[in-house]
Amino acid sequence: MKYHKKMEKTDNPKVYFRDKRVLITGGLGMMGSSLAIDLIRWGAKVTLLDALIEQYGANFYNIEKIKNSPNLQVIIADIRDKLAIEDSVKHKDIIFNLAGQVSHNDSLENPLLDLDINYRGHVTVLEACLKNNRSAKIFYAGSRLQYGNTQRIPVDENHPRNPLTPYATNKNAAEDYSNYCHKRFGLKTVVFRIANPYGPRCQIKHNKYGIVNFFIKQALEGNEIRIFGDGRQIRDYLYIDDLTKAFLFAAIPNQTNGEVYNVGSGVGISFAEMASKIVSIVGKGKLKHVKWPAEYINVETGDYISDIGKIQKHTGWNPSFSLEEGIRRTVEYYRSPQTRNRYLLPSQIFSPKSKFD
Amino acid sequence: MKYHKKMEKTDNPKVYFRDKRVLITGGLGMMGSSLAIDLIRWGAKVTLLDALIEQYGANFYNIEKIKNSPNLQVIIADIRDKLAIEDSVKHKDIIFNLAGQVSHNDSLENPLLDLDINYRGHVTVLEACLKNNRSAKIFYAGSRLQYGNTQRIPVDENHPRNPLTPYATNKNAAEDYSNYCHKRFGLKTVVFRIANPYGPRCQIKHNKYGIVNFFIKQALEGNEIRIFGDGRQIRDYLYIDDLTKAFLFAAIPNQTNGEVYNVGSGVGISFAEMASKIVSIVGKGKLKHVKWPAEYINVETGDYISDIGKIQKHTGWNPSFSLEEGIRRTVEYYRSPQTRNRYLLPSQIFSPKSKFD
Repeated sequence: MKYHKKMEKTDNPKVYFRDKRVLITGGLGMMGSSLAIDLIRWGAKVTLLDALIEQYGANFYNIEKIKNSPNLQVIIADIRDKLAIEDSVKHKDIIFNLAGQVSHNDSLENPLLDLDINYRGHVTVLEACLKNNRSAKIFYAGSRLQYGNTQRIPVDENHPRNPLTPYATNKNAAEDYSNYCHKRFGLKTVVFRIANPYGPRCQIKHNKYGIVNFFIKQALEGNEIRIFGDGRQIRDYLYIDDLTKAFLFAAIPNQTNGEVYNVGSGVGISFAEMASKIVSIVGKGKLKHVKWPAEYINVETGDYISDIGKIQKHTGWNPSFSLEEGIRRTVEYYRSPQTRNRYLLPSQIFSPKSKFD
Repeated sequence: MKYHKKMEKTDNPKVYFRDKRVLITGGLGMMGSSLAIDLIRWGAKVTLLDALIEQYGANFYNIEKIKNSPNLQVIIADIRDKLAIEDSVKHKDIIFNLAGQVSHNDSLENPLLDLDINYRGHVTVLEACLKNNRSAKIFYAGSRLQYGNTQRIPVDENHPRNPLTPYATNKNAAEDYSNYCHKRFGLKTVVFRIANPYGPRCQIKHNKYGIVNFFIKQALEGNEIRIFGDGRQIRDYLYIDDLTKAFLFAAIPNQTNGEVYNVGSGVGISFAEMASKIVSIVGKGKLKHVKWPAEYINVETGDYISDIGKIQKHTGWNPSFSLEEGIRRTVEYYRSPQTRNRYLLPSQIFSPKSKFD
């Protein structure tokens, strides 16, 4: 809490981020756009870079609120594009490297694509920083899936990493590469191993990732919500505003340079309970238990809860949204069919009302 | 030693490998060619696949002894070449996937090349096996460098892996991918984390890897042998015949499927002592202590000794060459300038006397 005190004086985010030049890869996704909204509010100059790959989370509607800000720039480019990235990282103070192939299960179908985006793409960003910008703070969005089967809960950062899928393997490799760039060249890298995030601005077209959001959509439409097995597997669900705050808090102190942090709510809730809460809050939808599909059971990690002691200690960050409150706010966001449709139609990523078309 | 007993009856390598179809990637390097010589002796049908990349270890002189065997086939192809690999893995009983970018230090200069060969290349081999051959036993040659800084010695397989370079990061990723293929699809993968191997058939053109061999060459030519720092760093040097034997022993039992093993001598010797032994056995050469160059000290792991208990228990394998004996045999191999020259001139990889030109 020492840091908290200090922050109230000089490192208040509202002061700290003013005029900071920030690059966010995957900037039109849930995480990137939520960060952008806060950063713009605090006076940062924000460049969003996104490849608009279908099935992933890019959506121009995500930046509806800030699209007219003079401090916002959007670049359509892919982190696999070396030249575009070498140019984009120049003169930035902070880089949130959040772009990714986001489906654990899709990595089983197309492992080389996952490798090229989720590992080689991040190496490309880091190498571009080595070439053109060694002073930026560089965040990498890893995943709790990097641990694979959990041997104990809560899981702290020293828990062995035995990834079960190409997705998790590539996330680990990208993390290791970040650490190497820190140790050898002094790059100010920070890696987050993120629990299950959810909230406004997540895609809800399919259930390949963002399951809380998908269930909310199902409930809002009065559909069936399918729970695999008995639904007793424990998960750690993290509301997007808490995650955004963690990124911002960790961006400020030097102590976070070169570190890896678990970021989650720190609270374990069973899958079935999460689904029940959604049905109860929405007031619609119906739970149905089904057998584990083979492609899921093989990559099931067992129960997971983040031990978030390290990031709390280093940054003063604390999650503040209960799952109920997070679901309520998310339901609120998608409640009107007009908003919801923006996240259902693939073509909506090219919003006709956007200045970026 | 239960397995040892069993082996003497039915699993004697001389019987086991007869008519086995074996693919060795990196087949013209030190490890691949040494394995090939043993396998041909035991009646296996051996396909060597090699990309002949300069600076690496491919050398046609390595297979001088067996080049006329009707059981030997050589394919010039790269593990990054999906179609060539998909074809090559067909109908094989055992695949020794040893191809690689072999210099730890070169991975710092050209990290994307290292990624493409040492990780993406191996994913290509494993995916080819998933497509065309799910029954082969598939070895991957990892490295003791996967551990990074050692927290304790001897190092067992549960020691944390915190790689210090792209090379080590990519080796870890390839290992994780092997394990994933085993767990999810039942591929019979085996990973070796190999200590510092040396012996006949290693390149001696430069000191980027195979330092024992390079020192032997320096001593044979009466040159200076440069030791970084005080030379007290402990290493585990593994003679090639012991390594070859480990591959063969581990190929036979089912118990090794899906496992990761340290493979080393299990004996720690200081760098300076290794160099002294070379000078003393060769009877020429001169030791010189120099300062650690920056590009080495940054990736120095600290002392390393393999804990080899697991592979000993699972396979009955034991290393049998002392460092003195190994050096003696290696010196013997390179002693004549005629042989030595075969390993010095890059063009010698295309031996004019070979049938493969």
